[in-house]
Amino acid sequence: MKQLGVALIGHSFMGAVHSQAWRTVGHVYDLPARPMRTVLVGRRAQGAAHAAERLGWQDSTDDWKSVLRRQDVDIIDICTPGDSHAEIAVAALEAGKHVLCEKPLATTVAEAESMADAARRARAHGPHAMAGFTYRRVPALALARQLIAEGRLGEIRHVRAAYLQDWLSDPSAPFSWRLQRERAGAGALGDIGSHIIDLSQYLLDDTIDGVSAQTATFVGRRPLSDKPERTGQVTVDDAAAFTARFTGGALATYEATRYATGRKNALRIEVNGTCGSMSFDFESMNELAFYDTAQDTGGTAGFRRIQATEPGHPYLEGWWPPGHGLGYEHAFTHQARDLVTAIADGTDPAPGFEEGLRVQRVIAAVEASAADSSRYTPVDRPGSV
Amino acid sequence: MKQLGVALIGHSFMGAVHSQAWRTVGHVYDLPARPMRTVLVGRRAQGAAHAAERLGWQDSTDDWKSVLRRQDVDIIDICTPGDSHAEIAVAALEAGKHVLCEKPLATTVAEAESMADAARRARAHGPHAMAGFTYRRVPALALARQLIAEGRLGEIRHVRAAYLQDWLSDPSAPFSWRLQRERAGAGALGDIGSHIIDLSQYLLDDTIDGVSAQTATFVGRRPLSDKPERTGQVTVDDAAAFTARFTGGALATYEATRYATGRKNALRIEVNGTCGSMSFDFESMNELAFYDTAQDTGGTAGFRRIQATEPGHPYLEGWWPPGHGLGYEHAFTHQARDLVTAIADGTDPAPGFEEGLRVQRVIAAVEASAADSSRYTPVDRPGSV
Amino acid sequence: MKQLGVALIGHSFMGAVHSQAWRTVGHVYDLPARPMRTVLVGRRAQGAAHAAERLGWQDSTDDWKSVLRRQDVDIIDICTPGDSHAEIAVAALEAGKHVLCEKPLATTVAEAESMADAARRARAHGPHAMAGFTYRRVPALALARQLIAEGRLGEIRHVRAAYLQDWLSDPSAPFSWRLQRERAGAGALGDIGSHIIDLSQYLLDDTIDGVSAQTATFVGRRPLSDKPERTGQVTVDDAAAFTARFTGGALATYEATRYATGRKNALRIEVNGTCGSMSFDFESMNELAFYDTAQDTGGTAGFRRIQATEPGHPYLEGWWPPGHGLGYEHAFTHQARDLVTAIADGTDPAPGFEEGLRVQRVIAAVEASAADSSRYTPVDRPGSV
Amino acid sequence: MKQLGVALIGHSFMGAVHSQAWRTVGHVYDLPARPMRTVLVGRRAQGAAHAAERLGWQDSTDDWKSVLRRQDVDIIDICTPGDSHAEIAVAALEAGKHVLCEKPLATTVAEAESMADAARRARAHGPHAMAGFTYRRVPALALARQLIAEGRLGEIRHVRAAYLQDWLSDPSAPFSWRLQRERAGAGALGDIGSHIIDLSQYLLDDTIDGVSAQTATFVGRRPLSDKPERTGQVTVDDAAAFTARFTGGALATYEATRYATGRKNALRIEVNGTCGSMSFDFESMNELAFYDTAQDTGGTAGFRRIQATEPGHPYLEGWWPPGHGLGYEHAFTHQARDLVTAIADGTDPAPGFEEGLRVQRVIAAVEASAADSSRYTPVDRPGSV
Repeated sequence: MKQLGVALIGHSFMGAVHSQAWRTVGHVYDLPARPMRTVLVGRRAQGAAHAAERLGWQDSTDDWKSVLRRQDVDIIDICTPGDSHAEIAVAALEAGKHVLCEKPLATTVAEAESMADAARRARAHGPHAMAGFTYRRVPALALARQLIAEGRLGEIRHVRAAYLQDWLSDPSAPFSWRLQRERAGAGALGDIGSHIIDLSQYLLDDTIDGVSAQTATFVGRRPLSDKPERTGQVTVDDAAAFTARFTGGALATYEATRYATGRKNALRIEVNGTCGSMSFDFESMNELAFYDTAQDTGGTAGFRRIQATEPGHPYLEGWWPPGHGLGYEHAFTHQARDLVTAIADGTDPAPGFEEGLRVQRVIAAVEASAADSSRYTPVDRPGSV
Repeated sequence: MKQLGVALIGHSFMGAVHSQAWRTVGHVYDLPARPMRTVLVGRRAQGAAHAAERLGWQDSTDDWKSVLRRQDVDIIDICTPGDSHAEIAVAALEAGKHVLCEKPLATTVAEAESMADAARRARAHGPHAMAGFTYRRVPALALARQLIAEGRLGEIRHVRAAYLQDWLSDPSAPFSWRLQRERAGAGALGDIGSHIIDLSQYLLDDTIDGVSAQTATFVGRRPLSDKPERTGQVTVDDAAAFTARFTGGALATYEATRYATGRKNALRIEVNGTCGSMSFDFESMNELAFYDTAQDTGGTAGFRRIQATEPGHPYLEGWWPPGHGLGYEHAFTHQARDLVTAIADGTDPAPGFEEGLRVQRVIAAVEASAADSSRYTPVDRPGSV
Repeated sequence: MKQLGVALIGHSFMGAVHSQAWRTVGHVYDLPARPMRTVLVGRRAQGAAHAAERLGWQDSTDDWKSVLRRQDVDIIDICTPGDSHAEIAVAALEAGKHVLCEKPLATTVAEAESMADAARRARAHGPHAMAGFTYRRVPALALARQLIAEGRLGEIRHVRAAYLQDWLSDPSAPFSWRLQRERAGAGALGDIGSHIIDLSQYLLDDTIDGVSAQTATFVGRRPLSDKPERTGQVTVDDAAAFTARFTGGALATYEATRYATGRKNALRIEVNGTCGSMSFDFESMNELAFYDTAQDTGGTAGFRRIQATEPGHPYLEGWWPPGHGLGYEHAFTHQARDLVTAIADGTDPAPGFEEGLRVQRVIAAVEASAADSSRYTPVDRPGSV
Repeated sequence: MKQLGVALIGHSFMGAVHSQAWRTVGHVYDLPARPMRTVLVGRRAQGAAHAAERLGWQDSTDDWKSVLRRQDVDIIDICTPGDSHAEIAVAALEAGKHVLCEKPLATTVAEAESMADAARRARAHGPHAMAGFTYRRVPALALARQLIAEGRLGEIRHVRAAYLQDWLSDPSAPFSWRLQRERAGAGALGDIGSHIIDLSQYLLDDTIDGVSAQTATFVGRRPLSDKPERTGQVTVDDAAAFTARFTGGALATYEATRYATGRKNALRIEVNGTCGSMSFDFESMNELAFYDTAQDTGGTAGFRRIQATEPGHPYLEGWWPPGHGLGYEHAFTHQARDLVTAIADGTDPAPGFEEGLRVQRVIAAVEASAADSSRYTPVDRPGSV
């Protein structure tokens, strides 16, 4: 079987999760090609070597450019902070490598455009690019997409989406690169808001037309983790709230925050249509709530709690019997499967960089609206994108 | 014991609920005065007479002005559509009667101002005015207010409120006065949005500083219920979504809609503070979810599901043992208790018309923002209100 | 309209709930006769008089026998402790009165038999007897019965029922008559276990064939409430657990306890059949969970959460719009409606005393099994009952 | 680092899950020794070879005895049907290998005794034996054990445990070896009932003193999967229900069934003590509900929903940030970690075969009671076990 060498760049949280996916995917799915954990790239040689052993990679290096030149590397998997995505991704695509890039795609629209351009050019002669909006591949959400696509909800009227975490609600929580605009691009909006933006557009198969937004930075300075007597300036949003209109007419609300005390990773989305609704909360990630006006008779209408663990549900063929739930990392294994399959089949993996760019443009519109008294701000759509 | 004669104006849904409250309140609470179901007012004499018998009122009439002149009437309880509130309430207060007026207070800010003015003038010589934001008196929500007031949540960062119904999600649902601006003032925003506006300001003991809003009317014309071959023009919002800032700094999201298929009466509110959170959904009206960082040790933090049915919980002294939940109408009995008590004690019932006016001003700001490209619109606060 | 005079015997918890039902029922339902709150009977004249005023009864007395002789009394509503049920009920039926008797019907099978006999004799010339298994009239449970009767669950395989409270889990909670065999008949088994016995037989329209049981008394002596330095001997079960077989073949588990710390009034029942299931918990009394293999297609099977608040649901025609939930006491109003209707129509109200006796026989079988090393003990069924 | 060669016997469902654990454990935990996926054993050579490649094992064979002789094999991991456990486990221990054996330990008490004897003998000179009651290692349940051990629940009064599946509720579901007594030992009782028996004894750190049981076989014959026109005789229980007493006095109920339509893998357990309670349902495997009378003040008592995903929770140090839930298979990775650690440290892994035997004895007591009119049957406890 054909092998696909993977080079993973980054080995902290995301690198560890991607590693678990690459270690697992070939053992639970019948793949058309065999992904190899060829090389792990880190900022420091020793750290990378240590991580490679721990995470199960054959080789390691501190020189990301070197891996672009390796013949045994086919896929560049980018798990670095956002400010390095564009440089690495563009170079990788130009070097003829397939690219999987963590979200948000970039720190600015301009960067994301350069990445989408590079992907468009590369596609012509082979390499594929994929953006890491992994929640699409949680089975319950993939099922939701199916049901909406089949028209089970009718015409969509409402989306209400929130991504709630709480790790900054304590004002003495330390400063980090995630709180710096130049490193992270945006705050909660980019880090977690990007997920619900992408997810909602994916579920509806529709695009956000425009937004009206407010952002907030509740705590302006935070202690440095290594020198707690000094503080760093927070230059990103702590929270973002916005209303939006979809091109198809749906009215939507969004909220992303790291100040929702007690909510650890509550990605929530509800969609209401003329003949049905669905609701999801990542805190119960194996469940989809579904309300169907068509099937209910005799006073038995109600949101049904679907356990998305049946053999016929998306991605479930590789896993366990009904009721034996999956965890957070499984969606990354599904992502790896879909990327390998797309590469082997020569089809475009989804979401591509165009879709990642589209999310970036929504983020930019949110920031523009927030900076302009929340005025309704259309999402930029140059050309026919 | 002193008697308080009540005249109830209106006998459809709200009139029936208020009747149940007046019939019940004296039997479950020790009241300082005895409310009498003196007279029921309806648009048509016969309908009013029939309703009076059914709902348990001693007398009936089709002349609301006549009841203002009756010596045996002390309280005017207004359960009519919004466009008649101002005229009746102002006249009643000027006639020296106490007034309980259903929400929203009025159809315009001007009307609400005239009512608040009348209440202010009346207060000097006795009569009290109360606005019917009844959800404040659901025990779980009254408990939430207590906990927040005690500082158990710390500094408030977020409010997320939604009031979701679905009775218009079917495009063929019939036209009604609730869909006409001149009768109803506003649509979902006024009818149910007013509740979450009031409730959030009440829970936080803070005011909304400004809003950025979008509204939508999804179905422009609907069949007349008596002549289905003809249609009426919907002139109010079907749904309203807005973000808001509280004066104290909290960032909030709101949504009111009648198009949330499957959600029957889902009034939901969540509040996050620096050291705790609370969450409520009227679909489980006897429960309050509460997260407390202060009390939790040893890895046992979690939203606790408080059954607000304990003897020490607000309003529970009159009811049943723990775990024997209350229903929708009980909050109206609590409202009746508080009004009777305030009148007997000579204190101001809460919420007064000023608070009702404040809600009306938020509604007006929402509409103004929606009409002005969602621009952030401060809530009008003339003088020190 | 014909009037039906009611005499209520007892005015503590149950008396207060029944009073609320009698005050309310005529105002929310179209009844074929008008129930009058004629007289309240208490142990002491002054207490009865006070309670009559508070609970809204026209007259009061401390002589329960006197009310059996009153021409203006048609219904005797018995809310006294269990050891007086038989005497009062039999005398009332013999005096030609209709009887509503709180559960459990009696403290022994012999007493219950005498009551059922009296009811059988009375029925021939008019008076009706009804046992107060009120949970049957919670709308969600009445709906469950409908669905099972329609065959929506197929052949029933399992019942799992539990009634959990916690007011004795603290060992220092005081002694009371409910802990004395001669007053209460049984402990948790009779007081709350009787509800789930009746409810399960009602839902399945089947009878328990036999049981295998264990009971426990965790705390043998408890302080007297008025003299805490002295203690009383607990002579009833604190908890009862048993397995059972239904005549139709279903295998069932039951548990009744007052030691389930944190569970206030958790009456839970789940039923599984060959093509569907249902589940209920009184802590969410307006909801029924329903799983239907017949209607589910395309991977959308799941327990649906039916809000039993729709106009077409049992008993809902008198109440509020969808989503406006009912409370504990409403089931008593439903019971009053059904009793008045049965009397007016000359039909037998359900459950009658025969059904109450059947529950008593199950209780007796449970106690017999527990006393005989948990041996499987058939429920006595003399004749064709 | 020292290597530990693993031989896995069996490669269907359980073999696949164990493989995932062995592939993963060294990459998420710092282990004191390195487990190697040395050899996979299957019934047929070709199937084993294919599975070894798919599941990631270096070698394969159809001769399980051969692997006992291999120097590079240290651990025998038994994932075969129950009737082969005893032979393999005893031989492996006698060959000086460590053994991990799936539950239930055996098909009879005699077999389990021989295994426990072998484990006892082996322990003297090195080899360790572990029984695969993996649910102990779900973090929420490991946390529950900690809280109970710390006395947070006080004296335990009640256990209510159920393990509900539905894959036999359809009468036309096919026959399989799991329905044959000689292959499987018992039916639902052994397969899933064994889990809740072990789990309850583990959580309480107490033993079941005796049981009173009923079992049922609802469908006597089922179509053969390869020849649907013929049927096989079901010789095990379809469902088992029993009450039990713990040595420490707690009263317990248990139910295991494959006929709970709609319940896919609902392992549920609730424990009530004098000052607290806990509740768990595997359908929400990352959550533990905990009620604590000690910490709750001011009317805030309630079951708190602990997300067992915090860094300080059991087993979480190897995984993801808070709120990023785990799945079914993770408990097997935890099991692998604990086994490797115990071997490296020379300590006894838990649960050992003695504990597996204890579960077997409870199963035997359940069957004996069911065969003897549900009579209370003490669990055999020879010697001081």
